[in-house]
This record gives sequence, structure tokens and C-alpha cells, in this order.
Amino acid sequence: MAQKPSIPKGTRDFGQVEMARRNYIFDTIKGVFQLYGFQQIETPSMENIGTLMGKYGEEGDKLLFRIQNSGEKAALAPEKGLRYDLTVPFARYVVQHREELSFPFKRFQIQPVWRADRPQKGRYREFYQCDVDVIGSDSLLGELELIQIVEEVYRRLGIRVCLHLNNRKILAGIAEVIGAPDKIVDITVAIDKLDKIGVEAVNAELKERGLNEEQVQALQPILNLNGTNAEKLTALKTILANSEIGLKGVEEMETIFDELEIVHCTLDIELDLCLARGLNYYTGAIFEVKALDAQIGSITGGGRYDNLTGIFGLPGVSGVGISFGADRIYDVLTELDLFPKELQSTTQILFATFGQDELHYALRWTKKLRAHNIAVEVYPEPTKMKKQMGYADAKQIPYVAIVGGDEMSSNTVMLKNMASGEQKQVTIEELVKTLNC
Amino acid sequence: MAQKPSIPKGTRDFGQVEMARRNYIFDTIKGVFQLYGFQQIETPSMENIGTLMGKYGEEGDKLLFRIQNSGEKAALAPEKGLRYDLTVPFARYVVQHREELSFPFKRFQIQPVWRADRPQKGRYREFYQCDVDVIGSDSLLGELELIQIVEEVYRRLGIRVCLHLNNRKILAGIAEVIGAPDKIVDITVAIDKLDKIGVEAVNAELKERGLNEEQVQALQPILNLNGTNAEKLTALKTILANSEIGLKGVEEMETIFDELEIVHCTLDIELDLCLARGLNYYTGAIFEVKALDAQIGSITGGGRYDNLTGIFGLPGVSGVGISFGADRIYDVLTELDLFPKELQSTTQILFATFGQDELHYALRWTKKLRAHNIAVEVYPEPTKMKKQMGYADAKQIPYVAIVGGDEMSSNTVMLKNMASGEQKQVTIEELVKTLNC
Repeated sequence: MAQKPSIPKGTRDFGQVEMARRNYIFDTIKGVFQLYGFQQIETPSMENIGTLMGKYGEEGDKLLFRIQNSGEKAALAPEKGLRYDLTVPFARYVVQHREELSFPFKRFQIQPVWRADRPQKGRYREFYQCDVDVIGSDSLLGELELIQIVEEVYRRLGIRVCLHLNNRKILAGIAEVIGAPDKIVDITVAIDKLDKIGVEAVNAELKERGLNEEQVQALQPILNLNGTNAEKLTALKTILANSEIGLKGVEEMETIFDELEIVHCTLDIELDLCLARGLNYYTGAIFEVKALDAQIGSITGGGRYDNLTGIFGLPGVSGVGISFGADRIYDVLTELDLFPKELQSTTQILFATFGQDELHYALRWTKKLRAHNIAVEVYPEPTKMKKQMGYADAKQIPYVAIVGGDEMSSNTVMLKNMASGEQKQVTIEELVKTLNC
Repeated sequence: MAQKPSIPKGTRDFGQVEMARRNYIFDTIKGVFQLYGFQQIETPSMENIGTLMGKYGEEGDKLLFRIQNSGEKAALAPEKGLRYDLTVPFARYVVQHREELSFPFKRFQIQPVWRADRPQKGRYREFYQCDVDVIGSDSLLGELELIQIVEEVYRRLGIRVCLHLNNRKILAGIAEVIGAPDKIVDITVAIDKLDKIGVEAVNAELKERGLNEEQVQALQPILNLNGTNAEKLTALKTILANSEIGLKGVEEMETIFDELEIVHCTLDIELDLCLARGLNYYTGAIFEVKALDAQIGSITGGGRYDNLTGIFGLPGVSGVGISFGADRIYDVLTELDLFPKELQSTTQILFATFGQDELHYALRWTKKLRAHNIAVEVYPEPTKMKKQMGYADAKQIPYVAIVGGDEMSSNTVMLKNMASGEQKQVTIEELVKTLNC
């Protein structure tokens, strides 16, 4: 036989069980998005290369997959590339369709993206992103709703999480009050390591990064911030008293916490000044969600941006969004054994038969069962019973209806519960009742 | 402002309304597939170029999109291409994973495919295919189930259809009995035009294609076949009396029709000897479905193949499958105005408020409504009522709950039915009741 065929490295086939589990995640998330009035869109897999280039930094440009028609010479190829994320195509979409859209525009998008990254464990060249954004409003209700969505998605999935919350304006305020407004990135990178390397090492790094002794000392009250979120915010108000932007950030935080109380949000939320993801891009709130019972890093993240569509010539449109990491959520659900058991099989019952007449008899039953929306299969040949049972086992079908001459003459089937091994003769009415439970 | 961004020709953005409609089609189809025990799989968007090349003929090879990492020189590029259809990746999947699969393997797959075709009306460079196959069994139950699936999908979608049914073995038998077994393709191509060009012209073409007078005369009873499917089959049994393969084809047809009767199939089915799609590929039944009330060609098609996996070195695996044309089904549903009206909006009610306190009051209500699985939005700012109403209109949200001081003091909202314009004050219990209807 020829060599087994294979797929490109960094890509994956998803079999039936994986697909059922992935659909469970996506359907759960979609269901929550829709409760909040977000609507789905899709953009093409390929974008003009000009839409993509220069949007992800120099490194990102190198990770773009380019597309070429088979018949074309490379030099003549119209320049297209595969989608690298959902954010840039979304910005392109909003600008291109702005006359058709009504703002605030609440959209979600669940599609694969492609990156020519070096494949490694947990990093793929094709993977799904699952983004939800509201754009065209600077109301903090956007932040509130996204936090509520996080709460509800993980409640439904059964994953205990902590949401880390920060605000770019507070970080800017800190840099301002210590007299190093241009050092906001350096400061954030350094204090991000506080948990890992301790305060001494952080201070050393801050000096390496160009802060003077006075500035490092001024940062100490911030490094030592603790207590409840409310206590931290109170302390920050004093620390940031001379920074307009810093106080604005604190005020935004307070508004969000107040509104979360109004809607009785019970999510574990931590004001985390070390959180800095996408710092060059976010302008307000910054979110990151971590699973409490699995060591896997961030499973959801996002923030407020004020200039997403500016790259396509439409400035001044504020939005806020988050992205759910489907692959990591999958891994958490697997590790914690949280996938519902019934996902294993979509088929509720298999008919196993001893002969052609029995097979025809079974066909009549399937018609009635499917009319009750019961998923049914008939083993396609009246072959050895062991083989038919093996098929049910492999597909984890919970019931088998065995049909022989006795069953046909009494207008019944022999119903076998595959988990318990229990068997009993049942009529069609009894069968419908059993399967509809 | 900069030039409006655009997308590559032959590709499409799908907005919220289109997505809701597309999801309606896919969800309907998926629901029926699952009733028959078919399970979803997904394969990567890119395949090794060797998996794809030579599988779609010379023309097909030219229509492949090739992929290149951005950083790579074209000459060094690892050879990958975008999926051209779902059939070849499915064959590759079955061979690659054959040890993990239990046969008969019933799978469906709904994913985009890419072809570097010249874009034109109704022809895209990226479009979804929706394939369902059972592989690893030569039982005619496969054909039966696919026909039942066609019946149920179009019943649910409300599209009246006719299924055209043919069998490659009958066509082979016809070629055999007229003494031209190597002319099966020529004969089929010619008689395919019977409706359009008439019997004289067909006979002329048959001669052009190398049939002699005697052979053309021998074909006449076949060209003149009419009556019910049963009458046609009876006539064919006489005509094909000396062809083993022809009689086998007739027998297969009879079995399928018998079984369709057992399951009370009411689908309009026509035995159509002119149907020849994929002739080089199919080995048994051939299906094609046409909408009766729209002139749009085939909306579903497929057939039995005996050697799909042979191209990857695994011969002798028989299967049968069909493919639903989502774009054409979309066009038929649009033309006949058959999309359910409620697809337009996922949001059931919008809260419109006069001030910040009212907005907080509304937030409390949304919490309770969402707990009843009601999709709710709050207009994010207490701005002009006209603007808030305009948002509800644009999004076709059926109800608006208006909140002012009066409503807050009486613990109600003013509920406006956007279709009728009717307004009334309601409590939260009354609101839940109204929206859950």
C-alpha cells in the first residue's frame, strides 16, 4: 500500500468527538453573545495583502500566509493573504460597510485564522478565534456587558475563573505621576514580573530600563498596593491625585464596579495593575481571564480601543472587545473532565437485525422515531450480531433495539441498555417514552 | 479620508442578516443529518499539495490556490494548497485515520472551499460545501437514507423539489446491449440533450460520436421510455435482458424504491436516464435535486462511488454521498421568500432610557430577563429617544421598553410593540410572559 497520507504540520483534523466538543464550546459562547444582542458576521479567509501588511508588526508580517493562484507566476500574483486574526478584518469590515451598519455595532465572529508560526505543543498554524466587540460607543456599558458575558459563559461551561482587570489610563497616570510618562511600557513590563521575581529584582529592572532612584521610590506604593479592589482604587486616587488621565482611569473602574454590583455580578474580579496585554493598542479597560483550576494562562482577553478603524482611514471610533481562546478552553474542559457525557454520541439508538425482513421492520420504526426527533441508525446489513453491537459500542450509542422473528410477531423490539446490559421487550410507544426522557 | 478598503474579488463578507440566514440553512441540514446518525468532522483548510494535485483533472489543478509563507522564497516554499472540495480531503481523512474509525463511517462536513475560478454572478472563489457520506458499506440503505435526508431537509426548509435518480450500472448496461460498451460517456452526453434539442438532433449527435445506424436504432426504445418509474424499470428489464450489469442496476433501483415505500417517502422522485453527473467517478446510484419553483439548476447532488479512497492507496471501500449547495439553497429561499421572519433579529427587546438612574434601573431588569433566556439590549447611553428608537428599528428589534421616572416609581416599564406602535405599562412578570410567547 502507498504511504499514508498526511496533513501540513501545524494543522489538525477534528474527528467526531472533538467536533462535538468544539461545537459545544462555540454553541455555549454563541448562546451567551446572543443574549446580549451581539450578531454574527463572517469575513473572507483571504484579504488583500495591503489590508494585512504592517498591522501586526514586523514579526507579524513574516507570519502571514500568502496565496497564489496555481496558474499564476509568483511575480504576477495578485497579492492576497490568509486572515491572521479577526481584529484587522473586522476593522476593514466596519470601514467598508459603515454606511450599512447601525452603531453601536455589536458583532461576534468565530472563524479560523492562520499564522506561519513554528508549530509546537498548543500552537497551531490554523486555529479558531472567537471575538466579540461593540464598536461605535464609548459607553462603559460595553465593558460591563463583556464582563457579564465572561461570567455567564464560564458559569455555563462550569469553569471557575478569575477576571483580571486593568486600565491603560491608570498605567499612563502612574507613569505621569512618577515623572516618566514615556516609560509606561517599561514600567509595565517590569512590574508584570513582581509575582515571579520579587520587588528587589523589579526595582533593579526598572533602573536598567532608565528610571532613576526617585522614580523607582515613587513607584513603591503602587507595587505594594493590596486589599480589596475598592481599597486599591481609594489608594490610587491619592497616588494619582495629580494626573488627570490617571483619575479618569480610576473613575472608569469605579463606574464599572458600581454597575457590576447593580447586576449582581458574582464573578471573581481582580484589579491587577500588572496586566498589560496589547498595551500599544488598548486605550481604556484591559481584561484577562484565567482558569482557577488549571495552569494554562489566559483563556479570554481583550480591552477598550479608541482607534481600531483609524488604520483604514476612519478615526475616532471607540470600541471594546474580548476574544475567547477556544483551544485553551477545550484543554481546560478536558483536563477538568467537564465536557457533558452526552456529547459522545449524537445517535440515541441503533437497530440491529437478524435478516432482511427484520431490517424492513426496523425501517418502519425508524421513521416513527425520527418523527419524534429521535436520532436513529439502522445497521445497514443483517450481519453477525456481535459486529452490529460492536458498532454501537464504538459510537457510544446508548441503546440497541434488536429485531428478530419474535419481536416482529409481537410488534415489539428487544431494547438493550448498553451501559447496564439490561434488556426488555418494548412497544414503539414505550420506546419513544424511554428515549425522550 | 483614505480609499475605502475592499476584499479580493470572488470573496464575500457576510453581514448579520446573511449570517442568520446561512446559519438557518446549515442548522436545518445539520439537524437532519444528526437524526440519521451522521457526525461532523473538519479537516484543515490547507492540504499538502500532493494530496490535491491530479485529483480534479488538468483544469482543476490550475484552479488550486497555493500557499506560501510570507518569509519564504517561492522556490523553497513547502507545497501546500487550499482545499478545493470536501471529497478529496475526506478520502485522505478516511485513509489516514482508518484504524481509529468504525465502519460504516457516517460523517458530514460543512466547510469553505477555494477555487481560483474567474469570479462571476453566483460563482465565488470561496464558498461553503455541505457534504454527507456513508463510507465502508455497499448496502443500499445508504442511498435510502440520503433520499430520506433530502426529503426531510427540503420539507423543513419549505422548498418543493424533485429528486432525479439514475444508476451508472444501467447506463453501462445500455452501452453494452447496443454493442458500444466504450461509448457510455458519449451516449450519456448526447441523450442528456434530449429535452433541449429533440430526438432527431440527438440521433445525429450519436452518429457524430461514432455510433453506427444499428446502434442508434437500438437506443430508440430507451430514448422513448416513459411512464411511471415502475413502468420504466419494467421496460428496462426487457431492454437490458442481456446485460448483467444493466440488470444489476435495475435491481438496485427496485430495491431503493421498495424501501422508500416501506418508509412512506413522499418525495417526488424521477428515474432519469439522462442524469450523468460525475460519471467517471460514480459507480452506482446518481442523484440530483432540483427546486420545482425556481429556475436555478441542481441544489443537491451526489452518488455511489466504489473507489474514493483508492487514490490514497486504500482500494475497495464503497460509499455513497450527497452535497447540499448552500449558496443556491440561499438563493431559492430568498427568491421564494421562505426565510422565517424571526431570523431578522436575535434581540427580543431594547431598553431605552431617559437618564443615568433609568439606565441603572434597566440594567436590573436585563439581568432578570436574561435569566429567562430572553435576548436583551440596553441602549448604552440615555440619549435622544429618537436615536434609541432608530437603533431598534435598524436592528428590527420587536419590542422597546422605555424607562422614565414614572416607570421607575411604579416599578414598571413602558412596553412598545414596534410593529403595531401599541404601548402599555407592564411589570417584569408581565414582560417575561409577553416575551416568552
